[in-house]
Amino acid sequence: MRATVIHGAGDIRFEERPDPRIQSPADAVVRVLRSCVCGSDLWAYRGVQPTPAPHPIGHEFIGIVEDIGAEVSTLRAGDFVISPFTDSDGTCAHCRNGITTSCVNFGFWGHTTASGELLDGGQGEYVRVPFADGTLVKVPEMPDAALYPHLLTLADVLGTGHHAARSGDVTEGSTVVVVGDGAVGLCAILAAKRLGAERIIAMSRHDDRQRLARAFGATDVVAERGEQGIAVVQELLGGIGADSVLECVGTKESMAQALGSVRPGGQLGFVGVPAGAPELPMPVLFKNNVRVAGGMAPVRPYIDELLPDVLSGAIEPGLVFDLAMPLDQVSDAYAAMDERRAIKVLLEP
Amino acid sequence: MRATVIHGAGDIRFEERPDPRIQSPADAVVRVLRSCVCGSDLWAYRGVQPTPAPHPIGHEFIGIVEDIGAEVSTLRAGDFVISPFTDSDGTCAHCRNGITTSCVNFGFWGHTTASGELLDGGQGEYVRVPFADGTLVKVPEMPDAALYPHLLTLADVLGTGHHAARSGDVTEGSTVVVVGDGAVGLCAILAAKRLGAERIIAMSRHDDRQRLARAFGATDVVAERGEQGIAVVQELLGGIGADSVLECVGTKESMAQALGSVRPGGQLGFVGVPAGAPELPMPVLFKNNVRVAGGMAPVRPYIDELLPDVLSGAIEPGLVFDLAMPLDQVSDAYAAMDERRAIKVLLEP
Repeated sequence: MRATVIHGAGDIRFEERPDPRIQSPADAVVRVLRSCVCGSDLWAYRGVQPTPAPHPIGHEFIGIVEDIGAEVSTLRAGDFVISPFTDSDGTCAHCRNGITTSCVNFGFWGHTTASGELLDGGQGEYVRVPFADGTLVKVPEMPDAALYPHLLTLADVLGTGHHAARSGDVTEGSTVVVVGDGAVGLCAILAAKRLGAERIIAMSRHDDRQRLARAFGATDVVAERGEQGIAVVQELLGGIGADSVLECVGTKESMAQALGSVRPGGQLGFVGVPAGAPELPMPVLFKNNVRVAGGMAPVRPYIDELLPDVLSGAIEPGLVFDLAMPLDQVSDAYAAMDERRAIKVLLEP
Repeated sequence: MRATVIHGAGDIRFEERPDPRIQSPADAVVRVLRSCVCGSDLWAYRGVQPTPAPHPIGHEFIGIVEDIGAEVSTLRAGDFVISPFTDSDGTCAHCRNGITTSCVNFGFWGHTTASGELLDGGQGEYVRVPFADGTLVKVPEMPDAALYPHLLTLADVLGTGHHAARSGDVTEGSTVVVVGDGAVGLCAILAAKRLGAERIIAMSRHDDRQRLARAFGATDVVAERGEQGIAVVQELLGGIGADSVLECVGTKESMAQALGSVRPGGQLGFVGVPAGAPELPMPVLFKNNVRVAGGMAPVRPYIDELLPDVLSGAIEPGLVFDLAMPLDQVSDAYAAMDERRAIKVLLEP
């Protein structure tokens, strides 16, 4: 098959890789129908994260089950499936607690697992999925292709935005500030709206993202940043601060914005991968009783919760894809995201 | 009147102070029946926290209302009242959100408020209480003196231990680790038991405190600390970690113990006043989805929740007082706590 491999900073190649086949009785092999590029893929692309050796890349995909191992019981060939961005067995204590990202058999697509197994990447023609029963979610009926982009967001960005909203304790009537206007931040707006937030302030400086933020439910948009950004948000909220702040960036600056926006006793939900040493100063948390939760989103259980609203069209998270390209032009897709010509690029076979 | 004044490190004096009188229509004057020494009072006593000028001290007291201002509507002279360790108006947005410690009219006994008013300390014969309706809780009927120690814990340590348990999301069936065996840690054990925790591991090295920990509901006691302490706790919990960890110390070491004991997706409730730069490393929280909440306990609303169980005798938090002394020997009471001859000293008129 052909699949995307990163060889180093700026060096993305679509090349020949071994055809996946069932290796363990719990495996499935999936033919990829849609995949995409994630903001986090850009770290390696930009060289912020080193790539000591070439490896497959991409962690979001939907597709059709081609083959299953003898022990797979919830899937059969021909099923339409959504894969979370992590592999999990579904049976360990952490999976039973709903934290599939801490699974004892955790795997991240395109990377080597703790047991030394290199997993396929999502930006390829096929993916072998270990622990297929625990990992993959079957869509009950074969969906229309128009739904593919929306379903693909369940692999990561919608689930991650939803994790921000759940971690931020968004509920009916909440006032919410969302820091970050990437695909995850935008999905966090959508998720907050879905959970009943009354007021949603989006921090965004880009016209196209501001428009999508409003379409997803933002009631206010604040373009300012830093001290000025905090001042504008506090003025909008009467100096009290927000019930919930959803941090979807992961930098020192975005965390400072989040801490400056949350009210005493409020909840800070964070899903931005920490980069550049963001800080949670204990004295500030202590004085203001700010609650903090979040992390790598356990997307697997969230798919069950969110899928019905995607299938019914109640939410349209796939609008975060503002560019679609053929999979074999994946290198150009990375460039488009890197140059901010696209919020998120959909990859089609 | 006579009241306790700290003049500097190791210099606690019981001396003449002006008799409190009603100064604002929202004031009450309370005759103190019982007060006590708090672990946090020792910071100034030990010189860890500087005392640039002498000031009254003590922030836990129960007593009888002697006089009220014209606007006080929920109290009258002769009422038996419990005072939280902070003064709050009960009407601002933060008080309405239940975070009375962030009240716009916040005051801490013995200290100067934001508006420049020096408040009386709790270790005295009388205390003037601003915002009396917002601050004081009336006990419906005049309690027996045997209940005084238990009622006094509602001023701080029981409410603070309960805040640790609530912040740590302790619920029916939880596995809990409590870090810290001071009066607050012991009350956190009691609070966790009251909320239905199934297993409570107390970290304690002192015989007397271990006994009280077990009496309050601890099912296991771990005397080890540091890496060894984490290893023993993890072994007790099958390597999974605790649902809830209650951090009741506030040091770098205690926070490291807490982070090493909590399970992925678990909740860390902290009430230890941060000292010595305890750290919440974002990458660890992110990877394990550890939730963190806590801070200065908003004791005022908790009194309503806990008072019935204290009055009925269902819980006996006053057992944390293992020494009682006359108020005029307060200097010796500080020394007894400083030298760890007592867990907590009760002061009687």
